[in-house]
Amino acid sequence: MSEDVVKAMVSIASYVEKVSNEIDKESVTRFLKILTSALANKRKILVVGAGRSGLVGKAFAMRLMHLGFNVYVVGETITPSISEGDVLVAVSGSGSTQIVLSVASAAKRAKAQVVAVTSFAESPLAKISDHVVVVPGRTKVATETDYFARQVLGMYEPLAPLGTLFEDSVMIFFDGVIYALMNILGVGEEDMKKRHANVEFV
Amino acid sequence: MSEDVVKAMVSIASYVEKVSNEIDKESVTRFLKILTSALANKRKILVVGAGRSGLVGKAFAMRLMHLGFNVYVVGETITPSISEGDVLVAVSGSGSTQIVLSVASAAKRAKAQVVAVTSFAESPLAKISDHVVVVPGRTKVATETDYFARQVLGMYEPLAPLGTLFEDSVMIFFDGVIYALMNILGVGEEDMKKRHANVEFV
Amino acid sequence: MSEDVVKAMVSIASYVEKVSNEIDKESVTRFLKILTSALANKRKILVVGAGRSGLVGKAFAMRLMHLGFNVYVVGETITPSISEGDVLVAVSGSGSTQIVLSVASAAKRAKAQVVAVTSFAESPLAKISDHVVVVPGRTKVATETDYFARQVLGMYEPLAPLGTLFEDSVMIFFDGVIYALMNILGVGEEDMKKRHANVEFV
Amino acid sequence: MSEDVVKAMVSIASYVEKVSNEIDKESVTRFLKILTSALANKRKILVVGAGRSGLVGKAFAMRLMHLGFNVYVVGETITPSISEGDVLVAVSGSGSTQIVLSVASAAKRAKAQVVAVTSFAESPLAKISDHVVVVPGRTKVATETDYFARQVLGMYEPLAPLGTLFEDSVMIFFDGVIYALMNILGVGEEDMKKRHANVEFV
Repeated sequence: MSEDVVKAMVSIASYVEKVSNEIDKESVTRFLKILTSALANKRKILVVGAGRSGLVGKAFAMRLMHLGFNVYVVGETITPSISEGDVLVAVSGSGSTQIVLSVASAAKRAKAQVVAVTSFAESPLAKISDHVVVVPGRTKVATETDYFARQVLGMYEPLAPLGTLFEDSVMIFFDGVIYALMNILGVGEEDMKKRHANVEFV
Repeated sequence: MSEDVVKAMVSIASYVEKVSNEIDKESVTRFLKILTSALANKRKILVVGAGRSGLVGKAFAMRLMHLGFNVYVVGETITPSISEGDVLVAVSGSGSTQIVLSVASAAKRAKAQVVAVTSFAESPLAKISDHVVVVPGRTKVATETDYFARQVLGMYEPLAPLGTLFEDSVMIFFDGVIYALMNILGVGEEDMKKRHANVEFV
Repeated sequence: MSEDVVKAMVSIASYVEKVSNEIDKESVTRFLKILTSALANKRKILVVGAGRSGLVGKAFAMRLMHLGFNVYVVGETITPSISEGDVLVAVSGSGSTQIVLSVASAAKRAKAQVVAVTSFAESPLAKISDHVVVVPGRTKVATETDYFARQVLGMYEPLAPLGTLFEDSVMIFFDGVIYALMNILGVGEEDMKKRHANVEFV
Repeated sequence: MSEDVVKAMVSIASYVEKVSNEIDKESVTRFLKILTSALANKRKILVVGAGRSGLVGKAFAMRLMHLGFNVYVVGETITPSISEGDVLVAVSGSGSTQIVLSVASAAKRAKAQVVAVTSFAESPLAKISDHVVVVPGRTKVATETDYFARQVLGMYEPLAPLGTLFEDSVMIFFDGVIYALMNILGVGEEDMKKRHANVEFV
C-alpha cells in the first residue's frame, strides 16, 4: 500500500517542479515588489482563502510575520479593517470561490490593492484584481497539456483529488517567495526565529 | 528577483521527491492500517500540530473528512474528548513542541493510540507514541547527508528557513496518504466532492 | 476607574434580563423543536456568524456538542457540506452581514433549514430564513423604547459599543437554550463532561 | 419549554450583576493600568484561554484591537513571540487548565507580565501570575455562599452547566473593561468602527 504514497508524492513533487518553470516571471517580480513596497510604506497585508487554499495562505502569512511584515489573515480575531494602500492576497484555484470574491470586492471598495493567486487568468477573481499570479492547477494542465499530464506524469484524476495540485504548488510557491524576500531584505533565519511564536499552540 | 523563487521551488520539490524514497515503507503501511482500522471501527481521529505543522495537519484532516473519516482538529470548537481506541495524529518536526507533547500525553492517558509524524525517531514525542512515521526535515538531512544536501540540492539554510522542508514534505506526504486511502477504500473524487463544504468560508 | 467597569456590567446584565422577557416565546419553542428534531433525525447543525457573533455561535456549538448534537462551525477545518434536512443557525445582529447572508443563501440552495438569530425581523437574513428568533440589540431598543433605554437603563452609546448588547444577550440566550435542552433530553452535567474535550487547547 | 430558557437567562443575568459587585475593585483598577500602560509603551498584549474561555478571550481581543491596542490571540496565525514588557491575559475558570498554564509559564520565562482571570486566587495559574482578577464562577459561589447561590438565585447545577457562569461573567466583565478603557482613552464608537473589520468573515 505504501507504494501508492510514494508514487503520489513523486508525481506531486514533479508537478511542482514543472510549475516553478511555468509561472510567469514578470508576474512574480511584480508580486515581490508589491510586498516589499507594503513593508516599506508600513501598509497592511491581508491574506484570504477558503478551505485548503486558506490554510496555505495562513502558512504564508505566518512566514511574512516572521519576516517583519504587518500581515493579517481575514477571519481571524484581531484582523483590522483594510484601507487604501493596503494589500489583499486572495488565494483561489478556480478564482470563483464566492467568499473570496466577496472579500476581494470589499477590499476593492476600500481602495486596497488586490493580488489574485489562481489557476485561471480569466476567472472572476482575476478580473477584479490589480495583479494576478497564475499558478497552474490540475484542470489547467489537463486542458493545455493533456498528454503530458496524463501519460507522462500520471496526473490521473484520483492521484491528487480536488484542488490538491494547486494547493501544494502554491504552498511551495509561497515558500519560494519567502526565500526571495529573505534575500531582498537581508533577513536571516536567526532574525525570523526571534519573531517566531514562543507561546504557540495551534 | 523571480529566479530566487524558482530556485527555491525546484530545491524544495527535489527535496520532497528525495524524502518520498526515504520514508520507511513499513511505517507508512502501518499508518495506513491504523487509519483504515479507525474508519472500520468507527473510531475518532484527532489531528494536532503547532504553527505551520498544525496547518498541514488541518489540510490532512479536511481531506480525511472528504473521505468519510470521523476526524477532528485539536483546538477547534466542536472537537470532542478522545477515548480508548481513538487515534491522535501528532505532527511536530522537532518532536519536542511542548503543546503537542502535552496533548499526546493526555491522549495516552485516555488510552488512545498516538501516531507521531516527526523528523526525529528519538524525540520525546516519538518516545511516547505508539507508532512513528519519520519524515526527514532539514536538520536531519544536514546531519546525515550534509554534502548532498548542501552542495547538490543547495540546501543552504536560508533557502527554506525554520521548519519549511519538514512542513512541505509532510503536506505532500499526507496528500500521498490520501491518494493511497482513496485506492484502498475505492472512494473517487466525485464522492469526495459531495462531502466538500458547500458553505465554506475560511 | 473600576466603577465604570461595574456600571457597565450592571447595565449589560439588566439589559439581558430585560431581553429575556422580550424574546417571543413561541419563536423560542420552535427553535428548540428544530434543534431536538435535528438530533432525533440525525441531521447536522451548522452554526455561522461573523466577528463576535461568530464567537458566540462557537460557544453555543461547543455546548451542543457536549449535549451529543452533530454540530459544526462554518469555516472550521472538518465542517462537511450541508444538505436537505440539515439546520443552519445564522447569527447576525443587523441581519445584513454579507458573509452570513452568502452562507445562508448557499444553505437554502442546498435545501437546509435556516434559523436566523438577529435583532431585525425585517432584515435580509430574516427574510430568507425559515425561522427567526429576534434578540433585541441596542439599535432596536434605541429606536423603539428610546427613553427607557437611555434614561432608565443608561444605555448611552459608549456604554456598550457596536454590537455588544446583542452579542452578550445572544451568548446568554444560547446558554438558556442549552439549559432547556438539558431538561428536554434528560442530559446531566456528568454526561456533558464526558464529551468535553480532554485534549483541548485553544 | 421556552420558560426554561427565560428562567436560565434571568438567573445568569442576576448572577453577573452579583459578580459585578464582588470583583475586587483594586484588582480591576490595576488591570486597567496594566492595559493602558501596555498601550502607552507600545507593548504587545497576548490573550489565551481554552475552550469557551478562549472564545471569550477572543471577543475581548477583538474589542481591544478596535480601541487601537497591539493585541494578539495565542494560537492564531500571525501571533508573534512575547517579550519582556509584553502582557499575557490568561483566562481559566479553574486556573488549572494545562495548556493555559503551559503558555503562562512560557510567557514568564520570556519575562512578560502575566494577568490571570480566574475564579480561584489559589490556583496554579494565579500563583505564577503577576496580577490576578478573581471572577467568581459557580463552584466558588457554591463553596462560599452555598445557600444564597442555591436557594435564592436558583444556582442548581444544571441551570448553567460546566463553566457557563464563569464564561458569561467574564464576557461581560471584559465588556465593562472595554467601556472603562473607552472613557480613559477618550475613544468613541466612531473611532472603533474605523478599525472594525470591513472584510470580516468568520
